[in-house]
Amino acid sequence: MKKVLIKNAVLDNKNTDLLIVNGVISKIAPCIEDLEAKVFDVRQKAVMPAFYNMHTHSSMTLLRSYCEDLPLFDWLNNIWKREAELTAEDIYNGTRLAILEMIKSGTVFFADMYWFHDAIVKAVESMKIRANVGICFMDSLGKDAINANFDYAKSFQKSEGSLVDLGIAPHAIYTCGKELYRECFEFANENGFLFHTHLSETQKEVEDSLSQTGMRPVEYLDSIGVLNDRTLAAHCVHLTPKEAEILAERKTTIVHNPCSNMKLASGVFDSEQAIAKSCRIALGTDGTSSNNNLSMIDEMKFASLLAKVHYANPQAGKVNDVLQWATVNGANAVGLNAGEVKEGKLADLIFLNLDNERLVPNNDLASNLIYSADSKCIDSVMCNGEFVMWNGVVENEQEIIETAKKYIRDKKRV
Amino acid sequence: MKKVLIKNAVLDNKNTDLLIVNGVISKIAPCIEDLEAKVFDVRQKAVMPAFYNMHTHSSMTLLRSYCEDLPLFDWLNNIWKREAELTAEDIYNGTRLAILEMIKSGTVFFADMYWFHDAIVKAVESMKIRANVGICFMDSLGKDAINANFDYAKSFQKSEGSLVDLGIAPHAIYTCGKELYRECFEFANENGFLFHTHLSETQKEVEDSLSQTGMRPVEYLDSIGVLNDRTLAAHCVHLTPKEAEILAERKTTIVHNPCSNMKLASGVFDSEQAIAKSCRIALGTDGTSSNNNLSMIDEMKFASLLAKVHYANPQAGKVNDVLQWATVNGANAVGLNAGEVKEGKLADLIFLNLDNERLVPNNDLASNLIYSADSKCIDSVMCNGEFVMWNGVVENEQEIIETAKKYIRDKKRV
Repeated sequence: MKKVLIKNAVLDNKNTDLLIVNGVISKIAPCIEDLEAKVFDVRQKAVMPAFYNMHTHSSMTLLRSYCEDLPLFDWLNNIWKREAELTAEDIYNGTRLAILEMIKSGTVFFADMYWFHDAIVKAVESMKIRANVGICFMDSLGKDAINANFDYAKSFQKSEGSLVDLGIAPHAIYTCGKELYRECFEFANENGFLFHTHLSETQKEVEDSLSQTGMRPVEYLDSIGVLNDRTLAAHCVHLTPKEAEILAERKTTIVHNPCSNMKLASGVFDSEQAIAKSCRIALGTDGTSSNNNLSMIDEMKFASLLAKVHYANPQAGKVNDVLQWATVNGANAVGLNAGEVKEGKLADLIFLNLDNERLVPNNDLASNLIYSADSKCIDSVMCNGEFVMWNGVVENEQEIIETAKKYIRDKKRV
Repeated sequence: MKKVLIKNAVLDNKNTDLLIVNGVISKIAPCIEDLEAKVFDVRQKAVMPAFYNMHTHSSMTLLRSYCEDLPLFDWLNNIWKREAELTAEDIYNGTRLAILEMIKSGTVFFADMYWFHDAIVKAVESMKIRANVGICFMDSLGKDAINANFDYAKSFQKSEGSLVDLGIAPHAIYTCGKELYRECFEFANENGFLFHTHLSETQKEVEDSLSQTGMRPVEYLDSIGVLNDRTLAAHCVHLTPKEAEILAERKTTIVHNPCSNMKLASGVFDSEQAIAKSCRIALGTDGTSSNNNLSMIDEMKFASLLAKVHYANPQAGKVNDVLQWATVNGANAVGLNAGEVKEGKLADLIFLNLDNERLVPNNDLASNLIYSADSKCIDSVMCNGEFVMWNGVVENEQEIIETAKKYIRDKKRV
């Protein structure tokens, strides 16, 4: 039994201790004593749930600030050229850089979608956070590569202590045909994997879908039977009321990526409609090359402020809704009993420095976190009961930065 | 003659030194030697211009995270009640808290609009940055208070080394009549003060103006002759092409406040129209209670991404435009020869830590600053040739935080 005792945390403005047993919050109370526990005194830091980044392409962090201010398809063409040069080693290093950034900004889980899944798995395991590593499928990969992906997934064995699971991630309806979607979905369901896809990101995707299938993207995916409660649908920017109803009925989680949708000018996700239809909503950053960071704090502020201005209603994009999208809704979408600071929940926690100028005064901590904070406010981060950042320091961070800078130097990019 | 020599800065990806004489950048070159200069080795930090926050109500930082998610006029009514309790000492302490936050996020100048101007002036002088302290006028103040404001402005004497100027700031067309606007404008012009007002922030303001004057807000202010090149017009959300032309012709600086306009659901400033009409555009954060921070980095990202999604054009809100709004355009609006890292310009500079994960890789530094960075990337800040933050530390920062927290405790707010 592994016990961790956190002394002097601030929860709902009150001083408290937290006892964590085998990665789960077992007791929240003042003045807990436990002689078997390893003790950490957080000295009046506020404890909040950590973040779950539900859609990203982590290793694209190597392409940060490359190729700005272009339309989606021009941007994709440029990015794809650079991506073609990336090796498994680059992906490993790029993913570690992304995870460093995520930990520093309070994120302990990410749902990824990319190539070189084995390198990504190893990177996540080396950094001791959680991830769902989505294996990206496209028809253009060809039959051999597609089968190799399924074989990899089938034979995947978690390392001791690993917090990584795999996902099956057909890229999008404009890169995957009906057969591939169905094959992926059946495989995911039979083997208990998460199913993760881009959906209804741009108006062009909707128009192409209508002209090719006679149906809108969500209607089409539903017609081929590949939406369920183990599906993450990233973007969902262009939904009719009927499509929102389909997603709600299938209990599919919509992953809202406001920064990416704004930066690529894809459109505005209709969050009020999705709330009204009782859709499951979570939040993601998308990849750094369309954001350009992995900060869920930025993402929450954008989600909230975009909703307010879009609906001309300052009561849209409410603090508590947006905080749930970024925490408990994401955790629940991948079956983690986490995202809240409560007994019985997984100990995925952030500790905020209440002396940081952005959190003063502290009339309302959740508002301060969403509207005012930045990564500097986050003092420590715990994942599954272990500190992955303590007093601002992540293990091996200098080496991760140096390696990423070396990649750029070697490619003579800068 | 006061000389400062900065060694080992990175400018446009090259290593360089900067010699600063009496607050002005006098030489930028590698390997400068000067035996009279005080030397600072910034050890490969990237040098960029500091930010100019062109519209805020700094002391409202004491109200951060108070009263969230309400419509503009409900919000104003709540805020006004709390503001009525603020003393001059509170304002002094609140402004110092705001300046601490601004320095930490790279801002060296702010154009303020508030009460207790004397307390604000003293706060700015104590923190050694620049400000234009706008004395707020409203008809409801009454004749005596209005005259006392003019008397204060007339007798204002700068302290030795002070970087503070005053502004004359009639609040808005819905709180100031024609006579007060004209009196303010003539006084500002005769005495060389900046003129600063809210303008066309909400649709309601436009409708009321039309019904009361038959003119839209900009047309109305122009008709009474109070717009010129020493005017800051904050918000300007609802402009017709004709109104944009008037502002361009008068060389009035529009201060765009995207976070505030989004958070209060006031609307979207038409930046493409303003660019097309050659308007002068700068950037501001507005007060923390409608933002909720004073970060120009946040403001730049919002300005850019909001433009892209609003025009459905990823080429709107370009990095270089937005950076100019936040730097040189603001400086120029108040007559400062600053906002660029060039010989002959005032030494208002920020130094970025290129080893921070948000700036790696550094394919494009301006993009990284706008789309990826947060305050943690800013290592040091120089104002007028003096470091106001060095290696992340601002003088007396703990005391400033403690004083602000004490205000909240004493008021039993939290």
